[in-house]
Amino acid sequence: MTKFVYDFAEGDRDQRDLLGGKGANLAEMTNLGLPVPPGFVITTDACRAYLAEGREPESMAAEVTEHLTALEKTMGKQLGQADDPLLVSVRSGAKFSMPGMMETVLNVGLNDESVRGLAAQAGDDRFAWDSYRRLVQMFGATVLGIDAEHFHDALEAAKTGKDTKNDLDLDAGDLSTLVETFKGIVSEHTGRDFPQDPREQLDLAVRAVFDSWNSPRANIYRRQERIPTDLGTAVSVCSMVFGNLGMDSGTGVAFTRDPASGARGVYGDYLQNAQGEDVVAGIRNTLPLADLEQIDKSSYDELMGIMTTLEQHYRDLCDIEFTIERGKLWMLQTRVGKRTAGAAFTIAAQLIDEGLIDDDEALRRVTGHQLAQLMFPRFDPDAEKELLTTGMNASPGAAGGKAVFDSETAIAWAKRGEKVILVRRETNPDDLGGMIAAEGVLTSRGGRTSHAAVVARGMGKTAVCGAEELEVDVRGKKFTTSSGREVVEGDVIAIDGTSGEVYLGEIPVSASPVVSYLETGEIDAGDELVVAVDRIMGHADSRRRMKVRANVDTGEDAGLARRFGAEGIGLCRTEHMFLGERRSLVEDLVLAESADDREKALAALLPLQIEDFTSLYRAMAGLPVTIRLLDPPLHEFLPDLTELSVEVAVARERGELTDKQEALLENVRRLHEQNPMLGLRGVRLGIQVPGLFAMQVRAITRAAASLAAEGISVLPEIMVPLVGTVQELQAVAAEIAVVVQEPESQVDGAPVPHQVGTMIELPRAALVAAQIAEVAQFFSFGTNDLTQTTWGFSRDDVESSFFSAYLEHGIFGVSPFESLDVEGVGELVEIASWRGREVRPDLKLGICGEHGGDPDSVHFFHRSGLDYVSCSPFRVPVARLEAGRAAVVG
Amino acid sequence: MTKFVYDFAEGDRDQRDLLGGKGANLAEMTNLGLPVPPGFVITTDACRAYLAEGREPESMAAEVTEHLTALEKTMGKQLGQADDPLLVSVRSGAKFSMPGMMETVLNVGLNDESVRGLAAQAGDDRFAWDSYRRLVQMFGATVLGIDAEHFHDALEAAKTGKDTKNDLDLDAGDLSTLVETFKGIVSEHTGRDFPQDPREQLDLAVRAVFDSWNSPRANIYRRQERIPTDLGTAVSVCSMVFGNLGMDSGTGVAFTRDPASGARGVYGDYLQNAQGEDVVAGIRNTLPLADLEQIDKSSYDELMGIMTTLEQHYRDLCDIEFTIERGKLWMLQTRVGKRTAGAAFTIAAQLIDEGLIDDDEALRRVTGHQLAQLMFPRFDPDAEKELLTTGMNASPGAAGGKAVFDSETAIAWAKRGEKVILVRRETNPDDLGGMIAAEGVLTSRGGRTSHAAVVARGMGKTAVCGAEELEVDVRGKKFTTSSGREVVEGDVIAIDGTSGEVYLGEIPVSASPVVSYLETGEIDAGDELVVAVDRIMGHADSRRRMKVRANVDTGEDAGLARRFGAEGIGLCRTEHMFLGERRSLVEDLVLAESADDREKALAALLPLQIEDFTSLYRAMAGLPVTIRLLDPPLHEFLPDLTELSVEVAVARERGELTDKQEALLENVRRLHEQNPMLGLRGVRLGIQVPGLFAMQVRAITRAAASLAAEGISVLPEIMVPLVGTVQELQAVAAEIAVVVQEPESQVDGAPVPHQVGTMIELPRAALVAAQIAEVAQFFSFGTNDLTQTTWGFSRDDVESSFFSAYLEHGIFGVSPFESLDVEGVGELVEIASWRGREVRPDLKLGICGEHGGDPDSVHFFHRSGLDYVSCSPFRVPVARLEAGRAAVVG
Repeated sequence: MTKFVYDFAEGDRDQRDLLGGKGANLAEMTNLGLPVPPGFVITTDACRAYLAEGREPESMAAEVTEHLTALEKTMGKQLGQADDPLLVSVRSGAKFSMPGMMETVLNVGLNDESVRGLAAQAGDDRFAWDSYRRLVQMFGATVLGIDAEHFHDALEAAKTGKDTKNDLDLDAGDLSTLVETFKGIVSEHTGRDFPQDPREQLDLAVRAVFDSWNSPRANIYRRQERIPTDLGTAVSVCSMVFGNLGMDSGTGVAFTRDPASGARGVYGDYLQNAQGEDVVAGIRNTLPLADLEQIDKSSYDELMGIMTTLEQHYRDLCDIEFTIERGKLWMLQTRVGKRTAGAAFTIAAQLIDEGLIDDDEALRRVTGHQLAQLMFPRFDPDAEKELLTTGMNASPGAAGGKAVFDSETAIAWAKRGEKVILVRRETNPDDLGGMIAAEGVLTSRGGRTSHAAVVARGMGKTAVCGAEELEVDVRGKKFTTSSGREVVEGDVIAIDGTSGEVYLGEIPVSASPVVSYLETGEIDAGDELVVAVDRIMGHADSRRRMKVRANVDTGEDAGLARRFGAEGIGLCRTEHMFLGERRSLVEDLVLAESADDREKALAALLPLQIEDFTSLYRAMAGLPVTIRLLDPPLHEFLPDLTELSVEVAVARERGELTDKQEALLENVRRLHEQNPMLGLRGVRLGIQVPGLFAMQVRAITRAAASLAAEGISVLPEIMVPLVGTVQELQAVAAEIAVVVQEPESQVDGAPVPHQVGTMIELPRAALVAAQIAEVAQFFSFGTNDLTQTTWGFSRDDVESSFFSAYLEHGIFGVSPFESLDVEGVGELVEIASWRGREVRPDLKLGICGEHGGDPDSVHFFHRSGLDYVSCSPFRVPVARLEAGRAAVVG
Repeated sequence: MTKFVYDFAEGDRDQRDLLGGKGANLAEMTNLGLPVPPGFVITTDACRAYLAEGREPESMAAEVTEHLTALEKTMGKQLGQADDPLLVSVRSGAKFSMPGMMETVLNVGLNDESVRGLAAQAGDDRFAWDSYRRLVQMFGATVLGIDAEHFHDALEAAKTGKDTKNDLDLDAGDLSTLVETFKGIVSEHTGRDFPQDPREQLDLAVRAVFDSWNSPRANIYRRQERIPTDLGTAVSVCSMVFGNLGMDSGTGVAFTRDPASGARGVYGDYLQNAQGEDVVAGIRNTLPLADLEQIDKSSYDELMGIMTTLEQHYRDLCDIEFTIERGKLWMLQTRVGKRTAGAAFTIAAQLIDEGLIDDDEALRRVTGHQLAQLMFPRFDPDAEKELLTTGMNASPGAAGGKAVFDSETAIAWAKRGEKVILVRRETNPDDLGGMIAAEGVLTSRGGRTSHAAVVARGMGKTAVCGAEELEVDVRGKKFTTSSGREVVEGDVIAIDGTSGEVYLGEIPVSASPVVSYLETGEIDAGDELVVAVDRIMGHADSRRRMKVRANVDTGEDAGLARRFGAEGIGLCRTEHMFLGERRSLVEDLVLAESADDREKALAALLPLQIEDFTSLYRAMAGLPVTIRLLDPPLHEFLPDLTELSVEVAVARERGELTDKQEALLENVRRLHEQNPMLGLRGVRLGIQVPGLFAMQVRAITRAAASLAAEGISVLPEIMVPLVGTVQELQAVAAEIAVVVQEPESQVDGAPVPHQVGTMIELPRAALVAAQIAEVAQFFSFGTNDLTQTTWGFSRDDVESSFFSAYLEHGIFGVSPFESLDVEGVGELVEIASWRGREVRPDLKLGICGEHGGDPDSVHFFHRSGLDYVSCSPFRVPVARLEAGRAAVVG
């Protein structure tokens, strides 16, 4: 028969599934011989059975009785006993922490009689009546479901009657009267009296905790956090101890090391004559934990010993809650403590040195998210600041400069040495130059995955996006805050991409020593954090199976990526090479009216592309360079249809319309697509526009052949985008096979070494991967597009519409554009990997979507057997770390 | 050891894989004892080995020698023997017919010596030299790869020399000279002489046939027809017989029944003193086959007997090719013959009556494509017509009426009883009213899957689309042909949706008796075709496992669908209910600035929706009705952004801009999406716009409850569109659960019977179907959207761009929007079906995309275990037939 109740002594910390996190740790401490108030845990099995059947499992009541009896025996008093009552707390505790989501009832066991016993035992009438008052209030609201406002109002009325605003001014008599009032509220709203039977109180409280698992807010929280909904909660029933029984009592919280800096030595707060809830309420100032040594040396010494024991036992920073009741120390809770990013690295390295953990374990103890946080500069926290507004923290970091409102100004001002912040309603690929030139980017529209946010994160550029209170007037070169404050071009502003805050004026910034270490490899031996990062990164590199490449489009970025540890280029987006000044060349190509015109346009682009690729190859000498053939729709290189239509209509009104304008409009209209994302792009364009891909392949192979002649080895990987069927790839592969026979593409009379492969970015490509792998030598998962098509929504269109409602309803825990949707998109990645490798066992597999730099996603890619991940240069160290972690995580 | 050569007598008709279609049927006839010229077949195994290794398999030559020796023995002469040569034909023959794609060489065995022997044997010098001339020409071009132009030019020169344009004026001497010239061409272009060794001729010819399997045109053909590329071809080597050896010789083709009408009795053509190629060349008029009885009664009687034998043996209409050489009948080919749609039905029914096949086999012998052809009216073929242009045959049928250029005029004129043809550059949902009112639709833009084409096919409305030569001037209410002919509003035109032709003036039309039978069930016993259709449809209905439902949005269409045999509604698109006059109500909803405004707009829509659903339910009393909640993006109900921007800009120029216009533009801009197909649609809209889905569910259930009170039973199936994750469906299901508790939605104190389900139209939904099936009671595959997202292209955007290039390159055999892409989209359908049923064994599965009415796709859906297909009313009989066929096809 299933056992539903465990004494603390019967459990251990590995039983989080059954006893919940809190219960398992109480059990662990009990078995370590630490002073935990005795108690027992009702299991999640019981909760699940209760939720499924609508009533407690049959044998549960008897088990509770048995454990309660044992508890009473241990404590030498009985639950609710009139002269010396045993009181218990009833707390929820699920496998995963769900702070504030579920119920707690304290002081169970008090009634009209035992309140007097408690008073006598404590020698404190007020304490007893206040405890009883709290029980009726908590029980009424959480167990009986009475609106908490009623109790609150009655309490306020009592205080008003005494002409005070402070609870402490209510004496035992007032509180006794208030208990009667509270009991009246209970009778009125439930039609029955407040239960005087202590066991009934206990049973109802347990049931209330069970029920709270399914409260709407708990459900939404779980959906948001992706906690399975069928786990259920355990219930700890623990004998009450009191820190508010005089100056020889008290309560505190403590950490075994400093969770902010990671510095060795305990760290905590203590409050005399108080309960835990008073610490939270902040009624009085707490004392530093060290002061406890003066107040109660024996308890202090015991606590220090316990903290050493816990750290040795958990082999990690622990945080604890404790209470001292009349000089006797009680441990109420412990767990592995939260810490800052820096502390995580520092402590992990310390624990290796202390012999508590090995390098693998240290690697498990830090995350890529933490490393990313350490890489961004921060504003000086002590500087004075004037806050203008708060937007979305789109790309972390701290940046300041003069506000500019267009890309040209950003580039021009940056050239003359000025720091600028580019401010736009939203950005598009044409703003790229300005974004590169600027210190940071501020937009009033778009979310964390808008163009501005994605590109900024990709470049490691600070960005605040979707600051919706700002009215950005690009033409007027100014923006206005909701309070009417105007900022014009040239005014200095500062943006904090970690917090989303936007300030007026200059704020001092400190650079990250971690970045400078990662880029140069130089270590200041005195900087404990950098030493720790170096040690752990080194271990990650030695452990990881996956290579890490970078997504870059210029030689400069390629150099940066290589310094950050990139082992090749996973994605060069050639469309980025066609912007700016070269736009007009592409416009010629798009508008070519004859094969001759087209050839001419392509011929003009060829030497430029050769230059582009040569610069990439030089930066990545000896390493593979994946170049994606042109992907975006041609019309992206033309003016916007709506803007141009307006321009033409206005010119016509004014009698100023030229034939050229009209012809341009006709062309733009012809190429316009309702859904460009689902239109003439990628390989479709390559098949539709003769010579386009051949020109690019020519540039790729000729540049490689020239460098090979100089003795610089490169392995170009030619990547065909948006393939949905093997026939498309066959058509392009045939074209490539012809180009590489040209003498300029050859070395020593043979085609320059190269590979031909494809993006897997359409669901169909994943499904027919076996066929595609007959032709492709590598697959690179384009998880941005794959997410778009698998879900049927485009990043550009939906972020600003329903995503917030979806996050709010818990339909998404996190945007699938930020962290890979393992269930849907992930299955397609696995299907493609498996089917492709079945046909071609040495098929090279990589990922070049934004997800390549997302810590959680990196683990998935490791498990899926990918050979490498590729991400933006600033993400390379994060990916290296996570690839190493993925290799050591069980 | 593999056997590579089979004597005709060693094979049979089931060996198409090995011997090719032609070889297998020659073998079959040989074994039936029919007079087939002796010969043998070199297998596809040999071809595949040759193509893989680049040379013939080792044992093949010896086998050919063995079979050739046997053949020579049978024929009593040797290949190329000087005095009485055996000549052979060498023909390709693959498993699937690839007409004109591969090579044939006749008269193999002729050389400088044997030509004289042939002349002596035939007693005809000219015949012998002409045969040799043909061999050198054919061999030179196809086996030796010399440009055919060289031979052609020499032949023309010879004729010019004789001052004639007719081959027949060249005598034996001329032809002997020409042979020398041809041999010179061979030497010049290949550096070697025309091979005189007959066996070398044979071996090279066989190799040329093998090679022709891989010719570019054959590869493209196979890609287009989806014939696997690795089958290879067989080669028939057959002793030559000659029909051109005098008036007692001749050649003919025949059918065992009339392939046009299906009438009983043989049918064919005969040409005296001729070879097969002369029949094709049409040099002389052929005689009706019956005349052969007078010319050569013995051969005629033998032929009649053979044709009876073949039909009895093949149990089907056969077509044959035969030759009579000096009074001796030879069978050169037979196969099951092609026939018209009407003949297919008529013959199948005849064969049942004759006891040759059973009803199942008859069902296998007809197709839904054929039934669809029989359902459309046709122009009187004898009428005089003036052709204006030819466009794409988008939706079959024949329709005439006055040209109108906008929906309003179409509706107004149709109301006063005039027939109209709606002419547009392209159509959009707003033209729906006009399309319904018109007899047919003509557009100058868009392909077979453009809006006009899809909707017209859906309504069974004749349409010619993409008639690109026409310049349509909607504002000027006229169109102009490329020859400058102008057609203005009110001019009568006629369009043939089967041929794509557009005519000026009225042309008499005959309605399809098959449609009137299908709609009424009435049969004219004298109409053999209708009787046949009835018999076969009845059998299809008795055999099919899948139900057939209809996609309709109005009570009227629902009635029609039911008469056509629909067993419920599989898809009611509620967005179609929001067009026309109700558009302004939706505009109110979209532009609502407060919850109050929104509630008001919804309240106005509720009674209209109740009316809509009531009318559907009445038409489908007793049957299930699936209603899809609103799917398209809200901004579809607003004006086009570009048009409105222009309007506003012009108004501003003129100083006439109103605040209302500006506000509208602001709203349209706010709701504008770059890729509406991937935007705020379907369930996303339902979650984003509070109350919208609840209003629709209220209307669905209230209408059902009212009718239930009248004793009319209906089963509404509430379908949630565009679900990608079960959380979305849970959110809507929770909303539905609340609405059905409202008293107006209840019958006898309980919610009106209903089901809740979802479209599976996103790849992710298919992958996570197990989760979704926990909530959904049915799945309906939305294969249009599923095709779009699986392939990553939208029907609206790509049809007019790269689809033609893709069809041309054979990347597509058929558009995946017309016939389901089984490999990609199909696998998702199967995954979803399987995963869904695992969780919920009684999960109802259906398909409501356009593919539901596509014959090939219906078979796939049957195999996938779907419960029903749903399609437009006119496709219902087609789907019934194909569902029956799917059940009997092995």
